[in-house]
Amino acid sequence: MNEISEHKFIGVHIFGEMYGIDSKYLNDCNILKEALEDGIKQSGATLCSMQEKSFSPSGATLLALLSESHASIHTYPEFNALFFDAFTCGQTCRPERIAEALIKALKPKTHKLHKKTRGDEDFTNPLDSEEVSLEAENLHDEITC
Amino acid sequence: MNEISEHKFIGVHIFGEMYGIDSKYLNDCNILKEALEDGIKQSGATLCSMQEKSFSPSGATLLALLSESHASIHTYPEFNALFFDAFTCGQTCRPERIAEALIKALKPKTHKLHKKTRGDEDFTNPLDSEEVSLEAENLHDEITC
Repeated sequence: MNEISEHKFIGVHIFGEMYGIDSKYLNDCNILKEALEDGIKQSGATLCSMQEKSFSPSGATLLALLSESHASIHTYPEFNALFFDAFTCGQTCRPERIAEALIKALKPKTHKLHKKTRGDEDFTNPLDSEEVSLEAENLHDEITC
Repeated sequence: MNEISEHKFIGVHIFGEMYGIDSKYLNDCNILKEALEDGIKQSGATLCSMQEKSFSPSGATLLALLSESHASIHTYPEFNALFFDAFTCGQTCRPERIAEALIKALKPKTHKLHKKTRGDEDFTNPLDSEEVSLEAENLHDEITC
């Protein structure tokens, strides 16, 4: 079995919000970056590159490109809050560890996180098989909440 | 009312998978980037910067940092498939337009997309109010699927 046939088209997506964070953390890209990088290490993912941007009058976005997909932070210091997501393809990484590292570093009073397994563990190649049961339909009709 | 008090801590997240895409598209960062940039324009979002990486033996990741948050593509040419997500903060952007642009450019046979409104429209500042009802608990207990 070669490398390609061993892996699967699946991944785990963790996303959510953290509230009640000291605003000094949310405008400090160094603190945010350090926490994010620490979490990525803990998750078992590999960091390829990082984008960061500070906004005026406040707030920052950090976007980490991982070998296994991505992780993001979007901060709102004026609300003492941030949006977070981390998506890792495959079955070996633990993206929830990235959330844990942020919670440890930024000390939100509360957080709300969701976990979703994405992709399809069973299918191999929809161009060559009949295994895909999804039908192409109008996008607006198909988006689910 | 100043700018800060007018905006809210909310956003819209579209994420999902597209299947049955010609693999030549999924290894071509130029095609992927053009489709993503077109979709970002259509969505009303502002592109700040783009990360891209081609993987060996195949596959690519594109990560767009937006003024309003981010958009991502992770391709699996060996499965003729990709993972997609786009998150835009605020109420003015239409992140589903980014998905539509990818579908138009890459012509997947099928797709499966989810839409989630995130954040909290009503709350202002949890450090100064009692409006946040979420309680900090153990992360593993709190993640919902």
